[in-house]
Amino acid sequence: MTTRELLAEFRAGSKRACARLMSVVENEPDVAAAVLDELYPMMGRSFRIGITGPPGAGKSTLVEKLGRECRNRGKTVGIVAVDPTSPFSGGALLGDRVRMPSLFTDPGVFIRSMATRGGVGGLASRTKEVCDVLDAFGRDCIIIETVGVGQVELDIAGAAHSTVVVLVPESGDAIQIMKAGLMEIADLFCVNKSDREGADRLVMEIETMVGMKARTPNPECRTSEVGDRRLAVSDWVPLVVKTVATTGFGVSGLLDQLEAHRKHLEGSGAMTERRRESIRSEIVELTEEWLRRDLWRRPVTTGRLNELVEQVLDGSTTPYRAAEAISRDVLAAG
Amino acid sequence: MTTRELLAEFRAGSKRACARLMSVVENEPDVAAAVLDELYPMMGRSFRIGITGPPGAGKSTLVEKLGRECRNRGKTVGIVAVDPTSPFSGGALLGDRVRMPSLFTDPGVFIRSMATRGGVGGLASRTKEVCDVLDAFGRDCIIIETVGVGQVELDIAGAAHSTVVVLVPESGDAIQIMKAGLMEIADLFCVNKSDREGADRLVMEIETMVGMKARTPNPECRTSEVGDRRLAVSDWVPLVVKTVATTGFGVSGLLDQLEAHRKHLEGSGAMTERRRESIRSEIVELTEEWLRRDLWRRPVTTGRLNELVEQVLDGSTTPYRAAEAISRDVLAAG
Repeated sequence: MTTRELLAEFRAGSKRACARLMSVVENEPDVAAAVLDELYPMMGRSFRIGITGPPGAGKSTLVEKLGRECRNRGKTVGIVAVDPTSPFSGGALLGDRVRMPSLFTDPGVFIRSMATRGGVGGLASRTKEVCDVLDAFGRDCIIIETVGVGQVELDIAGAAHSTVVVLVPESGDAIQIMKAGLMEIADLFCVNKSDREGADRLVMEIETMVGMKARTPNPECRTSEVGDRRLAVSDWVPLVVKTVATTGFGVSGLLDQLEAHRKHLEGSGAMTERRRESIRSEIVELTEEWLRRDLWRRPVTTGRLNELVEQVLDGSTTPYRAAEAISRDVLAAG
Repeated sequence: MTTRELLAEFRAGSKRACARLMSVVENEPDVAAAVLDELYPMMGRSFRIGITGPPGAGKSTLVEKLGRECRNRGKTVGIVAVDPTSPFSGGALLGDRVRMPSLFTDPGVFIRSMATRGGVGGLASRTKEVCDVLDAFGRDCIIIETVGVGQVELDIAGAAHSTVVVLVPESGDAIQIMKAGLMEIADLFCVNKSDREGADRLVMEIETMVGMKARTPNPECRTSEVGDRRLAVSDWVPLVVKTVATTGFGVSGLLDQLEAHRKHLEGSGAMTERRRESIRSEIVELTEEWLRRDLWRRPVTTGRLNELVEQVLDGSTTPYRAAEAISRDVLAAG
């Protein structure tokens, strides 16, 4: 089937075509941009919820229950589960059937698992693009689940409109949460398995920390050369919600709070600001990627590179001066 | 102390200055290039040994014993231990004192631990640069130990002249080794804890696999746009060495094989070829890094970016077309 035929089926609502286009976006970088460009006018309507937290916090169960709650409220759901597991650690990707039994057969739910296959390069942007496809497909809510809390996982969760950091009494104290960078990305905290000992203490610790942070703006707050989309939402103070995902306790309240956060984003103009920053960083990332790809295809650049490699070998220059020369040439001309 | 004073002390053999320059290279990208450029003429004499393999294979003990064996043969030693542990996994970086007790007080040994502090971005190139400093400092042998076998760790180990993949009978069978990409980077295999059950079977499996690979060149062998430095050494067939690092059994034989591999690299011209490819990829990486950094400092580019962001927002273009426009502009001019 050609990409054009796939797109036609996708527009007609075929889940199969949606899955195939996701695979294209994930695995065929040369075609991905054309597909996403085509789908772009259909994007921008879904509410993207990020769920992250340390292993063992019960995220999968929570995502399943949250998805069910969205369905109960009449919303269609997309779930993207990201598992950046290294090939040797033994953590195989669980099948969707096993992960989310109650959702798997619901036609209003689309579940997609993403693995890194040994490398994490570009995982965050590929996850975003898979969500873009679900968005264009018309899903009302997209839930992005990341396993673990490394930088890549934080980036993935941070690409959502609302990010829920899930913790359990066993996750350790609030200081560790802060150290792991979770304070920076949390729009809501969820203390799961909240029927266990230590849950109330953890809730209190987080609330204290959130309160301190609200009073003293952090000067080291994440900023980037191309702007910091977090700045626009600094007036939102993260709430702490208690859940017991296995029984469903608190899940409806969690979704209420997520909806409240969404309304806050829309009402305060932060949603548009986030959209602007998201577009900006997407253009920046794509530009850098394509520049890198095309640069070394130009005979003038590779010729210069070959020349400079030999000059380094014979001792007449160094790799640092060589790189400076090439990058200066490229930008001087522009 | 100024960088100039540090460099003077470094040249006079101060380990303290060496440690400080490593920190500069690791943490201050804007000064790093100037420092490395200055040190460049002093580099190129050390033999770099990469040690990698799954957790629990006894790599630290092996590295310590290997370092001691190098010392016994009159060589100075540098050890770089890379631990890409995420902040939440609980694996704290062990102190050097604890890691390598018998080497810590030896003035002929320099031990450096590197952590990722939550992100892995650029870890492979920063590791290479820390080794470059040790090289310029005049260390005869540099041993790079990586914990784990993710893509980043493989890249780090692959930057060595000789890469030893350490396995234990518990690591699983040869198929898993192949799957994890370890076949591609191994110049030598080391079956450690070889007094345990299953060691001989593992040795046999690896030898079979190595033999198969030697007969059938892999068409999917790693290549890159800027050349594949592995191609030049395809006539080397990896040997399997048995060790028991805790008792020191086999360590001298392992170093003999490493020396043999080094002689092979030098005799076959592969060492020069590797050097050429290493210079090439260093220039490519630095160029891409600096291009990315300087691109968004140019008013003409950021102006264009701001314009295009608004056009995407009002629906008159898409991020993909915008990125194409910017990257085309930059390269067309060059």
